[in-house]
Amino acid sequence: MIIDSDVRALGELVGSENVSTRVADLEAHAIDESWFKPHPADVIVWPSSTEQVSAVVRYAYENDLPIVPWSGGSSLEGNPVPIHGGILLAMYRMKSILELREQDLQVVVQPGIIYDDLNAQLGKKGLFFPPAPGSSDVATIGGMVSNNSSGMRAVKYGVTRNYVLKLRVVLADGTVITTGSNAKKTASGYDLLGLFVGSEGTLGVVTEVTLRLVGLPEKIAAVVASFESLREATGVVYDSISGGLDPSAIEILDTATIQATNQQQKLSLRETPTLFVEFHGNEAAIDEQLEYLREICEDHACLNFEQATTTDTRIKLWTARKEARESIKNAHPGATLISGDVCVPMSKFADMVDFVHDLGEKEGLIIYAFGHAGDGNLHTEAIVHREVSGEYEHALEATAAIVNHCLEIGGTSTGEHGVGLGKRQFMQREHGASLDIMRTIKKALDPKGILNPGKIFPEE
Amino acid sequence: MIIDSDVRALGELVGSENVSTRVADLEAHAIDESWFKPHPADVIVWPSSTEQVSAVVRYAYENDLPIVPWSGGSSLEGNPVPIHGGILLAMYRMKSILELREQDLQVVVQPGIIYDDLNAQLGKKGLFFPPAPGSSDVATIGGMVSNNSSGMRAVKYGVTRNYVLKLRVVLADGTVITTGSNAKKTASGYDLLGLFVGSEGTLGVVTEVTLRLVGLPEKIAAVVASFESLREATGVVYDSISGGLDPSAIEILDTATIQATNQQQKLSLRETPTLFVEFHGNEAAIDEQLEYLREICEDHACLNFEQATTTDTRIKLWTARKEARESIKNAHPGATLISGDVCVPMSKFADMVDFVHDLGEKEGLIIYAFGHAGDGNLHTEAIVHREVSGEYEHALEATAAIVNHCLEIGGTSTGEHGVGLGKRQFMQREHGASLDIMRTIKKALDPKGILNPGKIFPEE
Repeated sequence: MIIDSDVRALGELVGSENVSTRVADLEAHAIDESWFKPHPADVIVWPSSTEQVSAVVRYAYENDLPIVPWSGGSSLEGNPVPIHGGILLAMYRMKSILELREQDLQVVVQPGIIYDDLNAQLGKKGLFFPPAPGSSDVATIGGMVSNNSSGMRAVKYGVTRNYVLKLRVVLADGTVITTGSNAKKTASGYDLLGLFVGSEGTLGVVTEVTLRLVGLPEKIAAVVASFESLREATGVVYDSISGGLDPSAIEILDTATIQATNQQQKLSLRETPTLFVEFHGNEAAIDEQLEYLREICEDHACLNFEQATTTDTRIKLWTARKEARESIKNAHPGATLISGDVCVPMSKFADMVDFVHDLGEKEGLIIYAFGHAGDGNLHTEAIVHREVSGEYEHALEATAAIVNHCLEIGGTSTGEHGVGLGKRQFMQREHGASLDIMRTIKKALDPKGILNPGKIFPEE
Repeated sequence: MIIDSDVRALGELVGSENVSTRVADLEAHAIDESWFKPHPADVIVWPSSTEQVSAVVRYAYENDLPIVPWSGGSSLEGNPVPIHGGILLAMYRMKSILELREQDLQVVVQPGIIYDDLNAQLGKKGLFFPPAPGSSDVATIGGMVSNNSSGMRAVKYGVTRNYVLKLRVVLADGTVITTGSNAKKTASGYDLLGLFVGSEGTLGVVTEVTLRLVGLPEKIAAVVASFESLREATGVVYDSISGGLDPSAIEILDTATIQATNQQQKLSLRETPTLFVEFHGNEAAIDEQLEYLREICEDHACLNFEQATTTDTRIKLWTARKEARESIKNAHPGATLISGDVCVPMSKFADMVDFVHDLGEKEGLIIYAFGHAGDGNLHTEAIVHREVSGEYEHALEATAAIVNHCLEIGGTSTGEHGVGLGKRQFMQREHGASLDIMRTIKKALDPKGILNPGKIFPEE
């Protein structure tokens, strides 16, 4: 428990104007975009440098206080919710681009910079950081590193972990380390980078990130294709990926998601299962791929195959896809969304989609399904009216059934949202004995258990 | 020290015919392709299953015996040399393809399978595992996983770590874990996969590997281009990569390497600094890239730009490149080669190449330079006649100077060969405080220090 003297001491470390125990501040950092019960920290600290982060973490270490980094707050699994109170490190004021090394296709940033803001700056130099999280206007690079986030473009470009070259990290006792290299590849020692990426603030607090960048594509093309059934749509995904197509995105939306999208985004898409497909490349390569995709779609009795002919149309369509969750949310005012994020091997994707739909029908629940089909990553949103007795528990059970089915067919409980609070219960089943190794590492790096406690590991 | 009762006990675990203390066997596993002093194990064990590996490791654990996995023996840094004796686990009989999941672009293999053998099998299905180590006819998947190996194709396709989806690992006490998922991406818990890949057998013994695969390209094109100077050649590399070309290989060979290659491979390449460039893709995309490359080469006063017009020529040229180290070796019979493997950010590659050449001249040493230019990965071979007093030490000093310069300009001491014995002395400088974290992890996972002792970490 934090006491007045702690608040004063923290004020001495970062300036008292950067420390708050006001209820409004505590409440603003008590829950992310997930459906869990909010829990406030005892105190919010806004650091502005690695040195300040180090000083605050050291204070937490010496005084056995929980300390939880928070950046965009757009996560979906309760990842930065301070469920044990303590200090919340609000990282979002540390949002500078420290160095853009165009010549090496690298950028060094602070963790609080927002994904879209970073790409806006990089775009001026013809560069971008590809993993494209859904909430790109809120999600920060620090949050993406913590959760190993990705999104629509992972199918071509990979996930955040594939782009992190170097990290500055404050460890549990306040020690500052730099790990990684500016070289594009290395075989030097243990891969600490990979370990910190996706550790959700439980092993250290990231204060600087060096990212590898990619040149903007010469051309972008987008297609919307509608199908009679989900089976035909998933068939196209499977044939495309296994046939060697290289889309920069291949997204699926079920009928209900298309309906919500039409309604909220003022579109008039045909209300059947739909694929959004995007290609990056040069003109010749894209034309060849578009033609191949059209053939595959025709083989699957495509109802409609429409290429976005203008940049405006393309952007409008992709915004609609990106806003799918928002559209669903707005279509059910006052309802709670229980989000799923399963990811399965490609050949099991159709099975996974069918399972979700059958389950919704069988259980009489509204469950939307959409996602990054090319990676086998399916998002679900179960709609819950908390005022209806039992519906919340019912939807939670259904979401758990989806995860369990996913694990049964060789998938993972989370493709890109991380474990946070929401997936802890599946860790033992998913990882078996290797969960003990994760615990061993957690204990070795954070012996007092002060860093974002209660996350990833099922509480004992 | 191993005693007779140990040998008998090991025989009971794996069958006495699979245990040997014969001098010839010990000598055959006493040194890899590096220049270090051979050191024999006390006993060689050839396991044939995960269960046997587990039993042998548990025996080592209970009896405090060093245990070192060995597969292809083609490493270049002494990575599997049993410098503290003990048990050598010869993994190369475990070389089966356990499951090819074509539909998911995945294969499950045992660690002893040779890279070329695996790709020969995969090729029949139109698939391949891209990282292309130089010694692909000897290197095993297990060794590649241990050292996070790569090679010529990493510039387009990435390194071994990027392809490992799942591992079965025997831990220090004999416990068997499976880590990773069959899904293409995951954000579930700590990245143990990344940690085991590149840990050189110091954290566990890998007994099964699930790899992500890639479809074979529709077309391959190759170009050889010669230049007046190394500066012009490195200029082409820089302009190509920063200009967005996407070669599947872009290799540099200095004049001396070309001379050795001509001589040993019966070629008549122009004896000046040379680039070998390869493209994978569809016809249209490749043609566009070839044209762009030609323009860049012309801007750098290219002396010769030749496209391999037949598959035979292309394969002959690439074999010549792959055999560069072998050619150098054969050009200096009886000499020792001291190999370097530095990797620097792209903008520093020209500087690195110049440094090596100036150093060779200044020091009066023969130092060949060639490598994976598109990744900034430069290999050097310093030629040493051990009978010439002081030459060995002189060449070692020069190789150390190359690494130190590399670290000074933001590079890594090893791009793809791993640390082994050869790069241990640079770990403190390269990693600083994060080396302590690596030590903490080593200690947590292998508290008795029995797994491949003496590697990666400078001995205290």
